[in-house]
Amino acid sequence: MNFLRRIVKPQSKEDEDFYYELKELLNFKPIKLSHYKKAFTHRSLKLVDSKGNPINYERLEFLGDAILGSVIASYLYKESPKGNEGYLTQMRSKVVSREHLNSLGKDLELIRFVKSNIAKEHISDNIHGNIFEALIGAIYLDRGYNYCHQFIYEQVILPYVDLERLEGKISSYKGYVIEWCQKNKKKYSFQSYEDSGNQNKKHFSVKISIEGTVMAKGRATSKKKAEEIAAKRVYYAMQTQMKSS
Amino acid sequence: MNFLRRIVKPQSKEDEDFYYELKELLNFKPIKLSHYKKAFTHRSLKLVDSKGNPINYERLEFLGDAILGSVIASYLYKESPKGNEGYLTQMRSKVVSREHLNSLGKDLELIRFVKSNIAKEHISDNIHGNIFEALIGAIYLDRGYNYCHQFIYEQVILPYVDLERLEGKISSYKGYVIEWCQKNKKKYSFQSYEDSGNQNKKHFSVKISIEGTVMAKGRATSKKKAEEIAAKRVYYAMQTQMKSS
Repeated sequence: MNFLRRIVKPQSKEDEDFYYELKELLNFKPIKLSHYKKAFTHRSLKLVDSKGNPINYERLEFLGDAILGSVIASYLYKESPKGNEGYLTQMRSKVVSREHLNSLGKDLELIRFVKSNIAKEHISDNIHGNIFEALIGAIYLDRGYNYCHQFIYEQVILPYVDLERLEGKISSYKGYVIEWCQKNKKKYSFQSYEDSGNQNKKHFSVKISIEGTVMAKGRATSKKKAEEIAAKRVYYAMQTQMKSS
Repeated sequence: MNFLRRIVKPQSKEDEDFYYELKELLNFKPIKLSHYKKAFTHRSLKLVDSKGNPINYERLEFLGDAILGSVIASYLYKESPKGNEGYLTQMRSKVVSREHLNSLGKDLELIRFVKSNIAKEHISDNIHGNIFEALIGAIYLDRGYNYCHQFIYEQVILPYVDLERLEGKISSYKGYVIEWCQKNKKKYSFQSYEDSGNQNKKHFSVKISIEGTVMAKGRATSKKKAEEIAAKRVYYAMQTQMKSS
């Protein structure tokens, strides 16, 4: 076990920091750091390996895009048993749209890992989505498909993908919960507080109570997002209860 | 073990035949036959399950297409370390082109499994590629990603995908082998014979000998394809030998 740890353990202080930040982001242990380093290397550095092959995230982006597409496809297939091929294709386009991926990459603050010769503020906004895809490619090479699946579920599907919202049925979960409480004459509260943990960027936690009982919590990089995450949990708990009653 | 076999074992004579034919095709044991039956059910039958969800291959085709895309992407990523994103995208389009998938589906004779209310000869030629993708979707649901990976490698990548050919560097492996033998003054022979095994459709085996030594064999549904498969093996053996000498 110690022997294994020594192989896996990063060598320099910089690698060690990278390793622990990655581990927190991924929610599992990365093994070969070089894959992840590549995922965050911009072409402007013009790095090449000993065989002359370029080291930057562009090829990993191709790989990650394909893996992401297949995980989202299998999620939609299972979640929407009535949706036909056209519907599934349309929903997938929404989830993997450039805009959505950029917002995911930003939320995960992936840009903090990027090494580039161009000042980050001069790089196109698409870099956020591109390195998000490249990260998935790196996870695939490092740990295989099942880890990609887990990461995409935890980081993309659970917090952001929502058929009800994608279909336009619900525009705001917070709005839904408030409306429901008013209609059913229940007292409710949304309590929010700053909760940054060990992360650099500010985070918010939100607690929703109905009739004095905490129903759900949410945590994200903005108060609005954290409220939506918590309200979505309340919404799904309500749906489950309605079905069983 | 017997208990397990009883669960897995198909119930009717028709299911039993289907099970054994599938097992030969897949090179592993299918577990839930219903996934595969769905993969071969045409919409014209208008089947629905107890919840009113349609039973036909169209949704599985969506799923299989995405899984196929990701397996091919990972193959290309690994096989072509110098290829940039544009090159990888272009190569993948060639492999998963409608034309290529139709030819794969035809080669595997998947149409023999199809149930439809329309006479098979009146269905568009694209059905061959569509049910090939649907079959991959069914494998994914039945056995998971790794089995899809194995099936796609065995049935698509090894016999058909070839970067040298896709890039247009080699148009015929048979031609290459013959030219090489003539240039190097070696005697060669291509021997072919019919070899249908237990399959309904005619199959051919081809044996290539150089200077009286059997170098490689190939087997396929046409003599030409079997020759190419065998010649490709000779080609790669030559490349490996050249590199090591």
